Amino acid sequence: MQRARGSARRPVMLAIAGDSAAGKTTLTKGLVECLGEDRMTAVCADDYHRYDRTERAGKPFTALHPDCNHIDIMEQHLQLLSMGEPILKPVYDHATGELVRPELVTPRDFVIVEGLLPLHTRLARACFDITVYLDPPEELRHSWKVQRDCDKRGYRPEQVRAELARREPESAAYIRPQRRSADIVVRFAPVADRADPPGTPLSAELLLRPTIDHPELAPVLEAVTSPAGESHRETAMHLRLHRDTDGRPVDALHVHGYVRPEESQIIKKAIWDRVDRSAGAGRHLDPAALGRYAGGTSDPLAITQLLLLYHLLDADHRQAA
Amino acid sequence: MQRARGSARRPVMLAIAGDSAAGKTTLTKGLVECLGEDRMTAVCADDYHRYDRTERAGKPFTALHPDCNHIDIMEQHLQLLSMGEPILKPVYDHATGELVRPELVTPRDFVIVEGLLPLHTRLARACFDITVYLDPPEELRHSWKVQRDCDKRGYRPEQVRAELARREPESAAYIRPQRRSADIVVRFAPVADRADPPGTPLSAELLLRPTIDHPELAPVLEAVTSPAGESHRETAMHLRLHRDTDGRPVDALHVHGYVRPEESQIIKKAIWDRVDRSAGAGRHLDPAALGRYAGGTSDPLAITQLLLLYHLLDADHRQAA
Repeated sequence: MQRARGSARRPVMLAIAGDSAAGKTTLTKGLVECLGEDRMTAVCADDYHRYDRTERAGKPFTALHPDCNHIDIMEQHLQLLSMGEPILKPVYDHATGELVRPELVTPRDFVIVEGLLPLHTRLARACFDITVYLDPPEELRHSWKVQRDCDKRGYRPEQVRAELARREPESAAYIRPQRRSADIVVRFAPVADRADPPGTPLSAELLLRPTIDHPELAPVLEAVTSPAGESHRETAMHLRLHRDTDGRPVDALHVHGYVRPEESQIIKKAIWDRVDRSAGAGRHLDPAALGRYAGGTSDPLAITQLLLLYHLLDADHRQAA
Repeated sequence: MQRARGSARRPVMLAIAGDSAAGKTTLTKGLVECLGEDRMTAVCADDYHRYDRTERAGKPFTALHPDCNHIDIMEQHLQLLSMGEPILKPVYDHATGELVRPELVTPRDFVIVEGLLPLHTRLARACFDITVYLDPPEELRHSWKVQRDCDKRGYRPEQVRAELARREPESAAYIRPQRRSADIVVRFAPVADRADPPGTPLSAELLLRPTIDHPELAPVLEAVTSPAGESHRETAMHLRLHRDTDGRPVDALHVHGYVRPEESQIIKKAIWDRVDRSAGAGRHLDPAALGRYAGGTSDPLAITQLLLLYHLLDADHRQAA
């Protein structure tokens, strides 16, 4: 989903869409830390609520519903950011459920917009250079949401589960349809039918749609899996041509949680080299920031973030050219 | 200050600039009531404070200083309104001194923007079809501010006077220079050297700059003053060619507070006819809303508002043509 860009001063825009507690903030955080806060602005697009918590209580929809949000203002702000203009962004206080003092956001070279509905409308989608949808299994997302909302927002588990049930029709109607607008669909999940030791990170499945130019990974992955010829290694990391649920062709990159460091290092280095070749910018990055999550570090997460960094720097490079 | 207008759906934009308590709200209120809230949106442009009252206490400037305000966001919002787009406008709570939940403003056919700095920058000025600066004598404005801030904002008179003194350098540097960017400069003041009975409304002096096309008032006024030939009547309402303080030529329309209803009626009818002729819109207006102020009703104020209505409807008419 490439955007025509006029001026060299426009930021590169990345959308990370997904349902509540799908992992948007974790993915975003590593990108910001690796590129540096001086070059990257992260914006949460979930503050465009039309009503505060008290007002919402009387409405027939949840906070997920587009009618519950100032979608037109979100679109306007995305357009402004994509043109390099500052915005005065509304702020919703999750602790109190109130809409509070807005904050000035000045876009830097790279802007990540993460949220529930950043890909809901055509105009919003048109503001992005790269679009990502986070698509964990619902069961896993529910457990993440219970944990997060109880730990950080003071709810009880049964309250969170009731809210998830109440939101489900709107998740289905408005959040999940954004999956089809993403250049990259990211699914973190345990591998089925495996009993990995406790602490094994989740595997990543990345659907790479041909709507943007991905780095060529097939030769790299062949080099990893071929020499030894061991069948279990063949499955630790692989790229497969695949039909998506809607029948469209995609490349599916699997990086399993049990991938060995010496294997994952090969693909990391390959992407890293492309980042460097494309933008000469690798030396300004902090690779140690990649792959961090609440439970430790994860190679599948690090590789996902690295691929997004490749796209960010590549878009910036092509724009400057 | 006419703006090139592309689409027929763009609102007509009127700026009313002036220092604190210069009478902006009184002037605006009559216009909104006469045209109707369904056709007119009034926006106060003083909510773009960068700091709340507590934060401002430590700063070397007052709320009047452009650096104390998000001028770039104000410009952006004025541009959006002028294109008929909604904005999420920041809100400053004068009672608590806090920046609170922003509000959605959707522009109707006519937008009045009143505030301290709407004409401060070139880009802001370019958003308006008609620009007004309210220029009462400073002594009068100070007394209005003391009264208003004590009645409605809970200050003591000596606090307000101290604040006025603190603000004076910034009034001189940033507020008053906007006078020269106005199409119409409005000065309500008592007439010098007259002892009018208590309750006589203030006189209005309107400088009509040739930056927009004013209705031809000279023949109308001649008809009022000539027949009787009484010298005191000659001074109750007149139009004089005049050099402004900067040497630029202007028409100066004086409407004295002691004007008799049968005289003021003639000029009101003349402007009203032009409103009707220009836009056929007179029948949708409520003339009874004009001239109202805290102390009663004022013919000079009504005539000022009528002239602004003429310009609003004329701009709308020309845009539709």
